[in-house]
Amino acid sequence: MMRLCLALCLLFSFLQATSLFDAQSEGMGYRVERIASGLQGIPWGMAFVDEHTLFITQIQGDMLLLDTRTALVQPVFGMPFEPLYGGQGGLLDVAISPHFQEDSTLFFTYVKSINFQGATTLARATLEGHILTQWKDLLITHSTSGTSRHFGSRIAFDEKGYVYFSVGDRGMRDEAQELRSHTGTIVRLRQDGTIPEDNPFIDHPFALKEIYSYGHRNPQGLAFDPTTHRLYASEHGPRGGDEINLVEAGKNYGWPTISYGKEYWAPISIGEGTHKEGLEQPLHHYTPSIAPGSLLVYTGDAFPAWRDNLFLGALKLQHLNRIVLNKNGKVIKEERLLESLGLRIRQVIQNHEGHLYLSTDTGEILRIVPQ
Amino acid sequence: MMRLCLALCLLFSFLQATSLFDAQSEGMGYRVERIASGLQGIPWGMAFVDEHTLFITQIQGDMLLLDTRTALVQPVFGMPFEPLYGGQGGLLDVAISPHFQEDSTLFFTYVKSINFQGATTLARATLEGHILTQWKDLLITHSTSGTSRHFGSRIAFDEKGYVYFSVGDRGMRDEAQELRSHTGTIVRLRQDGTIPEDNPFIDHPFALKEIYSYGHRNPQGLAFDPTTHRLYASEHGPRGGDEINLVEAGKNYGWPTISYGKEYWAPISIGEGTHKEGLEQPLHHYTPSIAPGSLLVYTGDAFPAWRDNLFLGALKLQHLNRIVLNKNGKVIKEERLLESLGLRIRQVIQNHEGHLYLSTDTGEILRIVPQ
Repeated sequence: MMRLCLALCLLFSFLQATSLFDAQSEGMGYRVERIASGLQGIPWGMAFVDEHTLFITQIQGDMLLLDTRTALVQPVFGMPFEPLYGGQGGLLDVAISPHFQEDSTLFFTYVKSINFQGATTLARATLEGHILTQWKDLLITHSTSGTSRHFGSRIAFDEKGYVYFSVGDRGMRDEAQELRSHTGTIVRLRQDGTIPEDNPFIDHPFALKEIYSYGHRNPQGLAFDPTTHRLYASEHGPRGGDEINLVEAGKNYGWPTISYGKEYWAPISIGEGTHKEGLEQPLHHYTPSIAPGSLLVYTGDAFPAWRDNLFLGALKLQHLNRIVLNKNGKVIKEERLLESLGLRIRQVIQNHEGHLYLSTDTGEILRIVPQ
Repeated sequence: MMRLCLALCLLFSFLQATSLFDAQSEGMGYRVERIASGLQGIPWGMAFVDEHTLFITQIQGDMLLLDTRTALVQPVFGMPFEPLYGGQGGLLDVAISPHFQEDSTLFFTYVKSINFQGATTLARATLEGHILTQWKDLLITHSTSGTSRHFGSRIAFDEKGYVYFSVGDRGMRDEAQELRSHTGTIVRLRQDGTIPEDNPFIDHPFALKEIYSYGHRNPQGLAFDPTTHRLYASEHGPRGGDEINLVEAGKNYGWPTISYGKEYWAPISIGEGTHKEGLEQPLHHYTPSIAPGSLLVYTGDAFPAWRDNLFLGALKLQHLNRIVLNKNGKVIKEERLLESLGLRIRQVIQNHEGHLYLSTDTGEILRIVPQ
């Protein structure tokens, strides 16, 4: 890894941001810039560890620190082992602790090898310079399967400091309805990995107590809105039927009993249709699929007209998806940005000023700033 | 279950113990008695909850209380769900807490359904009369596989109160050498399910921290000697090569790299032979296989000449196996008792007087008392 990283350091040193294009949204001018390219590996997760430093996880297993002013990259060491990389699995998300200034703690999701099958796993570690110490697996989910599909997994924190992360159905469909495993769920834990006493299934006779919601297919977006205290998740549908859901304690989001998607191999509906009593409806669904790889609730100051909007990176219909909610949390508008770039947009985050930072599967880091 | 149990109650009421035969061992006369028969299901685990009451787990999922004076049986209710029953899996062992007089707590191992595959699981619950309350899964091991073989699992406590239980290799062989899963291990926990800080792999970069020893095939016997403070495990070999091991922290017991057994399908050795540096040798091995289903360190007063001996229930070469150790813990003698009965002996325990209680796969409960 050292050699790779030295090569990257040389590559990125002293690059300047490249302006790609200017455009308008809601009457505001914005500019799209490329601040880095040529990252050798998919930058799956990003988090700011200070105003100008992006911590980047690459699905292949490497971690980097990127200086957003100089594009200088340095490797991060200290993950004590390699994640299980393959298919949709590997090193996945990174998120900073809500008290990062004090505890220097990062949270990660990755795929752990259990008997050579993959289990989505939440871990934490302390960042000291560019070294991770005190790595601790907080929950190795019960989610192994024979496939390398649908691991999730994004991380979010609510205002009380509980940590949430998403687990896909691992290609096993019906198991998303099964509370004895973590497949197809959003999990809720304390930051030390223990189970909150008010988790919805804490008194359920056989459910895994970490589960917060279930019936999800492959949620790869998860974001908490600090204003409304709502938790949102986005998930990939089968063929059509990608969803945005308002995630609430104990609720069943229906996969695969209901779905707006079709089978890949024929125009045949999945399960029992699109509605069923006791199963939640999505806030929004996309057909054809856009393939949302991330979700952000925008709370920045740089783009006042975008405040409280949701942003989703779209991998298949390559663009940045913007969703406007009304005060009741209903979707009232959708806009597709950056379509002209034709890039698979993976992660979307904001910095302290409210600029948007995007990663692409081509190994680029883009930025959206006011024009 | 209620109907089954009412039938059993009628069946067992007011039966008297039946004397089967008398014999000699080490110059002592002993008598073998049948105290119950016709249990509909394999009595896999047994534990005395008072002087005359046996708590019995049946692999099919039922739990019973058996009065050893009257043979009266009553069902136990309160396990909140069915274990995954099939192959070698189901409801497995039961053990009383070291502080049972005060806490009325029982520990169980069973197979939990995770995505319709089985995971050996340790749980605890409180016994109130014939009802279990406060069921809690302490560790759902990472040990699922596509087979229904080699779950283990027996429970033991050491003098400090740590709880140990065994997990088989789940038919996956090489994974017994893999510290990223619980397959083929002895696990060590506190009684609340948390991980002791002095567990041997606590600082290992990727091992599961619950693991105490590894490289086991299918350990279905586990017993702590309160005199010597030694922990012993017995395990099934493949074809030949059943073992008794002295279990010590962090050690690797070699399966499948070394073994005294052969492949089932041909007289071909397994792995690299019988010895390898860094891998532990068994205290004793059996070829042909006896198939040990349980292990007891005898500490009773009724048979002074058997004190500190090991007893193993043999399922295949149907007998009760007695092993004599010298003061250094080396095996110096083996005796085969009860061969004439031709019964698959499953569990072996002792009561407060030092009488031995045995269960058989034919649903009988036997007792060995002084003649």
